Amino acid sequence: MTSDMNKMKLFALNSNKPLAQEIAEHLEVPLGKSTITRFSDGEVQMNIEETVRGFDTYLVQSTSEPGNEHLMELLIMIDALKRASAESINVVMPYYGYSRQDRKARSREPITAKLIANLLEAAGATRILTVDLHAPQVQGFFNIPVDQLIANQLLADHFLKKNLSDIVVVAPENAGTVRARRLANLLDAPIAFIDKQRKDDPDSVQGINIIGDIVGKQAIIIDDMIDTARTMTSGANALKQLGATAVYACCTHGVLSEPAVSRIRESDLEEVVMTNSIYLPSHKRDERITVLSIGPLLAEGISRVHQNESVSTLFE
Amino acid sequence: MTSDMNKMKLFALNSNKPLAQEIAEHLEVPLGKSTITRFSDGEVQMNIEETVRGFDTYLVQSTSEPGNEHLMELLIMIDALKRASAESINVVMPYYGYSRQDRKARSREPITAKLIANLLEAAGATRILTVDLHAPQVQGFFNIPVDQLIANQLLADHFLKKNLSDIVVVAPENAGTVRARRLANLLDAPIAFIDKQRKDDPDSVQGINIIGDIVGKQAIIIDDMIDTARTMTSGANALKQLGATAVYACCTHGVLSEPAVSRIRESDLEEVVMTNSIYLPSHKRDERITVLSIGPLLAEGISRVHQNESVSTLFE
Amino acid sequence: MTSDMNKMKLFALNSNKPLAQEIAEHLEVPLGKSTITRFSDGEVQMNIEETVRGFDTYLVQSTSEPGNEHLMELLIMIDALKRASAESINVVMPYYGYSRQDRKARSREPITAKLIANLLEAAGATRILTVDLHAPQVQGFFNIPVDQLIANQLLADHFLKKNLSDIVVVAPENAGTVRARRLANLLDAPIAFIDKQRKDDPDSVQGINIIGDIVGKQAIIIDDMIDTARTMTSGANALKQLGATAVYACCTHGVLSEPAVSRIRESDLEEVVMTNSIYLPSHKRDERITVLSIGPLLAEGISRVHQNESVSTLFE
Amino acid sequence: MTSDMNKMKLFALNSNKPLAQEIAEHLEVPLGKSTITRFSDGEVQMNIEETVRGFDTYLVQSTSEPGNEHLMELLIMIDALKRASAESINVVMPYYGYSRQDRKARSREPITAKLIANLLEAAGATRILTVDLHAPQVQGFFNIPVDQLIANQLLADHFLKKNLSDIVVVAPENAGTVRARRLANLLDAPIAFIDKQRKDDPDSVQGINIIGDIVGKQAIIIDDMIDTARTMTSGANALKQLGATAVYACCTHGVLSEPAVSRIRESDLEEVVMTNSIYLPSHKRDERITVLSIGPLLAEGISRVHQNESVSTLFE
Amino acid sequence: MTSDMNKMKLFALNSNKPLAQEIAEHLEVPLGKSTITRFSDGEVQMNIEETVRGFDTYLVQSTSEPGNEHLMELLIMIDALKRASAESINVVMPYYGYSRQDRKARSREPITAKLIANLLEAAGATRILTVDLHAPQVQGFFNIPVDQLIANQLLADHFLKKNLSDIVVVAPENAGTVRARRLANLLDAPIAFIDKQRKDDPDSVQGINIIGDIVGKQAIIIDDMIDTARTMTSGANALKQLGATAVYACCTHGVLSEPAVSRIRESDLEEVVMTNSIYLPSHKRDERITVLSIGPLLAEGISRVHQNESVSTLFE
Amino acid sequence: MTSDMNKMKLFALNSNKPLAQEIAEHLEVPLGKSTITRFSDGEVQMNIEETVRGFDTYLVQSTSEPGNEHLMELLIMIDALKRASAESINVVMPYYGYSRQDRKARSREPITAKLIANLLEAAGATRILTVDLHAPQVQGFFNIPVDQLIANQLLADHFLKKNLSDIVVVAPENAGTVRARRLANLLDAPIAFIDKQRKDDPDSVQGINIIGDIVGKQAIIIDDMIDTARTMTSGANALKQLGATAVYACCTHGVLSEPAVSRIRESDLEEVVMTNSIYLPSHKRDERITVLSIGPLLAEGISRVHQNESVSTLFE
Repeated sequence: MTSDMNKMKLFALNSNKPLAQEIAEHLEVPLGKSTITRFSDGEVQMNIEETVRGFDTYLVQSTSEPGNEHLMELLIMIDALKRASAESINVVMPYYGYSRQDRKARSREPITAKLIANLLEAAGATRILTVDLHAPQVQGFFNIPVDQLIANQLLADHFLKKNLSDIVVVAPENAGTVRARRLANLLDAPIAFIDKQRKDDPDSVQGINIIGDIVGKQAIIIDDMIDTARTMTSGANALKQLGATAVYACCTHGVLSEPAVSRIRESDLEEVVMTNSIYLPSHKRDERITVLSIGPLLAEGISRVHQNESVSTLFE
Repeated sequence: MTSDMNKMKLFALNSNKPLAQEIAEHLEVPLGKSTITRFSDGEVQMNIEETVRGFDTYLVQSTSEPGNEHLMELLIMIDALKRASAESINVVMPYYGYSRQDRKARSREPITAKLIANLLEAAGATRILTVDLHAPQVQGFFNIPVDQLIANQLLADHFLKKNLSDIVVVAPENAGTVRARRLANLLDAPIAFIDKQRKDDPDSVQGINIIGDIVGKQAIIIDDMIDTARTMTSGANALKQLGATAVYACCTHGVLSEPAVSRIRESDLEEVVMTNSIYLPSHKRDERITVLSIGPLLAEGISRVHQNESVSTLFE
Repeated sequence: MTSDMNKMKLFALNSNKPLAQEIAEHLEVPLGKSTITRFSDGEVQMNIEETVRGFDTYLVQSTSEPGNEHLMELLIMIDALKRASAESINVVMPYYGYSRQDRKARSREPITAKLIANLLEAAGATRILTVDLHAPQVQGFFNIPVDQLIANQLLADHFLKKNLSDIVVVAPENAGTVRARRLANLLDAPIAFIDKQRKDDPDSVQGINIIGDIVGKQAIIIDDMIDTARTMTSGANALKQLGATAVYACCTHGVLSEPAVSRIRESDLEEVVMTNSIYLPSHKRDERITVLSIGPLLAEGISRVHQNESVSTLFE
Repeated sequence: MTSDMNKMKLFALNSNKPLAQEIAEHLEVPLGKSTITRFSDGEVQMNIEETVRGFDTYLVQSTSEPGNEHLMELLIMIDALKRASAESINVVMPYYGYSRQDRKARSREPITAKLIANLLEAAGATRILTVDLHAPQVQGFFNIPVDQLIANQLLADHFLKKNLSDIVVVAPENAGTVRARRLANLLDAPIAFIDKQRKDDPDSVQGINIIGDIVGKQAIIIDDMIDTARTMTSGANALKQLGATAVYACCTHGVLSEPAVSRIRESDLEEVVMTNSIYLPSHKRDERITVLSIGPLLAEGISRVHQNESVSTLFE
Repeated sequence: MTSDMNKMKLFALNSNKPLAQEIAEHLEVPLGKSTITRFSDGEVQMNIEETVRGFDTYLVQSTSEPGNEHLMELLIMIDALKRASAESINVVMPYYGYSRQDRKARSREPITAKLIANLLEAAGATRILTVDLHAPQVQGFFNIPVDQLIANQLLADHFLKKNLSDIVVVAPENAGTVRARRLANLLDAPIAFIDKQRKDDPDSVQGINIIGDIVGKQAIIIDDMIDTARTMTSGANALKQLGATAVYACCTHGVLSEPAVSRIRESDLEEVVMTNSIYLPSHKRDERITVLSIGPLLAEGISRVHQNESVSTLFE
Repeated sequence: MTSDMNKMKLFALNSNKPLAQEIAEHLEVPLGKSTITRFSDGEVQMNIEETVRGFDTYLVQSTSEPGNEHLMELLIMIDALKRASAESINVVMPYYGYSRQDRKARSREPITAKLIANLLEAAGATRILTVDLHAPQVQGFFNIPVDQLIANQLLADHFLKKNLSDIVVVAPENAGTVRARRLANLLDAPIAFIDKQRKDDPDSVQGINIIGDIVGKQAIIIDDMIDTARTMTSGANALKQLGATAVYACCTHGVLSEPAVSRIRESDLEEVVMTNSIYLPSHKRDERITVLSIGPLLAEGISRVHQNESVSTLFE
């Protein structure tokens, strides 16, 4: 068993190199030398430029957009490390793509989040380190250990620093009440949630109804990810119209597909807070969007995994 | 491929023979001859008394209390069928035990629901047919097909027949809002939910707060299962005290561990509705407890599976 | 590779805590902190209360009665350790339940002992350490290493100390002659065996015939386990009636299902010797029953496995 | 599912073509066209000369001497059938080589019988049909169905026809008493067994002692196989010297390694009866050796397997 | 076993719908209804709009550019079919992407072609039908049946129809001589090959040397695929300058990455012949590029596979 | 992780003990004590006579003639080591038998080289170290790391020492041009190749045609192995008759099946150079056959693998 940083090699794939660099700095290890390029026809070409034989390897890759490309990079890198006799292959996925497809909601649907788990194991991954899964049950899709870190405290600390008064934490669209309750506990606040109804309700705003007391309060909507921001912004607008004094939003994963950023800009949201689990390119940056770094959390998680220390304090 | 009932054998294990018998009658097939007894030291002894070679076999077994015993019966029967050259081994689990242990909520917890999936596959199961999983993600714990039937309509029909007015569907304790919203849609009703808070709230009843509008309404609490009924009954009492005119409860799986029945008897609940996915022994029966049969639904599911027809209309 | 006791954690599950405690004392390691409780509906709840990340773990659990409960505890604990990143999971099963169901004796029988092996491997066990399997072929049910310790010498030493004269070792009911021959070699004695015949034989006692010379000798019947003691006690009575001067019995595993103890009390047996591979509760204790401890043997086996020393001298 | 002989193809490999031919005649199907030759360096070359796509295939091959060659032929044929899209690959092994190496008798021994099982499954076998395994536990080495046929009745019928009087069935060398008891039941006879002791015993013949009453009786020694015939012939001689009036031997598998035949010729054995599970070349034939055909039994077994009928009456 | 077209469902994924349509017409079956769309963040969304339960399914998908996207579509579709209880999942890959990465040419390289095989099997594919693998050894990367069709005759027929005289078939760059020899046999022609040398040779054209006699002949270069056409066009130019009267090229797979088409246009090539295993978009079409359809060959292959007929005449 | 020679055990099986001894001497470790004998019926009997628990083990075995025997020895040894708790099982196969059967060249052929890979993994091998595979794609038949060493430089050095002038490297029979080009680069020489044609060509010698310029040159034919030497010697004769001044041959693996040696003796070959990857018995030795030792290369490879150093410089 290796317990010192000497037997570790940390590699960054293409999805989020700045985060990997940040992790490396926290761990005080250099990033492993490798290049990922493309052949003329777009096939991934992998070059690992230093020996990994007998090393515990850690690969930092979010399977964020373009998710299939990032996933294939990851699988090919795992195959290369396995054949190059790495001692262990630890996949650090700050964002686990396809995680919303985690059940058969309708007939003949795939369970793509499970497929991803099978592909990672088939390629040769020996452990997963991830952050805030869409559903915690995704851990059970694996037969290898999965360590899930939680960004709750990071988000809570941000709002605690703002010294907001009379807060209500709001869960979006009939789900996520557990997550909201947890943040509310950290902020010592009540919760409410957004309900979408099929038929018109005089109390609703464009079919959106708020269940719970939000009048005169500062609302913080929390979700695990913000994709197109449609739900988030229409919820925010409804909250504002129905009496909230200010509306904030926060999430762990800023997917921000088109037209998320313009929707946020045009919304009643004061601020949208997210982590850098997915790299935010400059054209998606906005003054209303605050990005918190999960680098320190991930570095601490990797360090504990590598040194066989408990990571429990990081995710409870 | 077999498409007629001649190539099917249906077996009942010990957990819920009346339900298996009911299914057999709907399918117009006899129950396969087998006996499950115990050796002196309690080990399970299995006797399959008719040939299964080349047959599609269906085993009806809920892994309800005593869950470990029922699970072992099931695994041993699967092993016996595999070695006896059954063409396929279809496990019909109306109730999937251990389904609440579906994620690592704390460090070093098992994910027992996934372990069960691994054990079933290791024994040789080729398909799972189940009803209302605690989390739909459990489907993704398997690499074999899982057909999940939904008892929503069965429950809704019961309440529709009662012609209640001014209904509100209530989700229990910070979860289950999706399930509540679905029943509410069938009943054309609004929803509310029960929130448990850490500190005292003047609006709360014994630490329980109701989020949403329930005053003057007939409340129907819905959950996937009722175990000790503590949450359900304290929620019901709070709803009544905070202004609901009547409170009903419903669920798919009536686990009813001690002291569930006495709690129900002493509660403000008008009626508790459940299915017979778990066999309800006579000492747990009560005039306030209504049991609906999922036999017809399961028989229809098995029939469609066996004849290669789509089951989608049964679970959407 | 770890070779010191520092990288070991030893856990006791519920079946035989005194034996686990004894092993821990011999190894001079503390028992790992964990609790196994039950939810209201009887489902097993596991809490491992100290980190196991990177440790070689050893679980002491006999799958003795109630065997299904003890097996599920074991499987769930293995799953928890796997997901908690234990380096290895060594299952110490002093008694391997279901070991008699090790072949298809009749059509459509399960081979439950093989199923158990598959379940242990599916859960994530990496090695098995056991004592006196019913058939040594059970080792071949596994693809992971199995170290089988033998209690022969322990039993022989007990009888050698008694200084019995003119011994004959007797194998019970048409099997176990290899085991009897091995004990006889240690005691320098001849062997005989008990034969059950279908039709009456004038030389038989209630259908039991003794093959071999036992007149005027002190007989020691040996079997791997004593379950209901029916065979053992009727054999002993026959031996006595047909001329043996005294009859002793010994075995490794004292299953002692009802009514074993009363049968022993009412039999012609002088003494029944067994090991503590299965915990003997006080109500089963009797002055005629002698329990020898296999704790030192198991501790030595674990120590050698952990320090990568040969265990061959312990089982040959 | 196929239930007619049209969807079956039966192939003979090199170990026992006459038996395969006999089976084919009983089944009234032609032997499939295939040739197994060798490249110049001895590597096996396989040619399957007719389509097997979608067929249930049956391969007749005993892994008798030269066992490694016959095993490799079998594995290569299985691989070829798998890649050629056979619907099922049923391995008919009248004799299962390496079956005596079924446990770790000493440290660091292989369990070769289990290895063989793993190799057959890894190659792609879907079912095993075999006869009289050395230990019935070998069935549990497989995760695919194993149907074991029993030659007991065949052997018993032979002796019943001889009208021998005052028979005793004798088990060889501290094992095989179950097999002896079973034959004795068919012949309505008592049993005895041969014991080898370490030290000299005045009653022994060259260290061999007979336990049980054989004086004045016609003894039939039964074993699963006769290899070098050392044990069998020295046992026979001892039986004769100690008072048996005549000694016969029987077994299912006539391995007959050198110098078995000359030992038999020089022994006190009246007759040695065996089946043709292993092909007996002409130079091993002797007037004292009687070979019974298991062709009809195997043909019946294959026919029932193929038509999904129970084979239980064939092995109980 | 199904042997009629009624139990078949043929699906087209996105890479080459015209070819799938053509196959469907040849087979006289409709294309199965399914849609593959993308979520906002680019994740693949799969909808299978008709039941597949119990059907043999065939998926037509080349993993051509964008290869990772097409591969993920395929894997997700396989997962969906598996969970929807398809009887078999036959993957028809006219072009197998990543097939050139079939070995570790340098340290720490992945073997991506093997990874793809593992991913397809992990997802649940039960058979592969493909055309002209880069190396035939890729068949051995799978444990499921692989049927490889060969386009040789299709290409040969095209050139035979042209009635060229004095042909020489040329293998490109130190490999592919087996393929060239095979085409030469069909055209009754000699062969030559292109050699690239490290140092200047007075007989070379820009470092390219032709081994073999090509002066005054019509040269046909054959390769399995044309990617950027660099090798092919520089080879063609060298052949022309060194005395060939005309130069043609042919291949099975027209990858045609940038700037292949412009290179072909500017080269000395008379004609480049390829199949439609990869869809050729209109902007890559050119009068010098001839596309032959492998639709009939694939349809015939699928038909024979489905009806359990031998496909050997299609690939020898 | 072990990085010193103390945790290594090197074992020699029967195929090439002198090479294993040579490797042991280079590594300065003793050969592990084990004996491989045969039971009377030819079954392999394995005795490992020292503990391997926790050791990294290396097994030297070429699966050369008799290949099936050597393969079974290897598989049985792997099984024994696995069950004896070896930390890793590294199979050193200087010659990988059956490597030519690496694809389905015709219908219903096995892919025996892949079968061998599956058998090695099923038995429990954890890494393969081999030399010059027939096709490098065989690496992809494994899911465990394969390190392939290359004997090119060894062969080139031999010819460089001879100071031959005006060399041409010749590839045999329409394949092996990559291998020839690589040797030619090391020798700074041009290449040619041997073409076999179906019909008579006036330039051919007994149906053999030489493509490329060989007149007046010293030709060196290179192949990965020489089996019966038919191709090699007829090619050599043709080269000589068509104008080569001298012809040499070289290969890595000297299979030399009958009548290879007499063919070489009667041929126009000056010298045949090979390595000792396969043991050359004395009756196959000849003054024209030069054997180079790959012992130092293998020792260096094993040493680097064991000490987790890169082996890349050994095979590029």
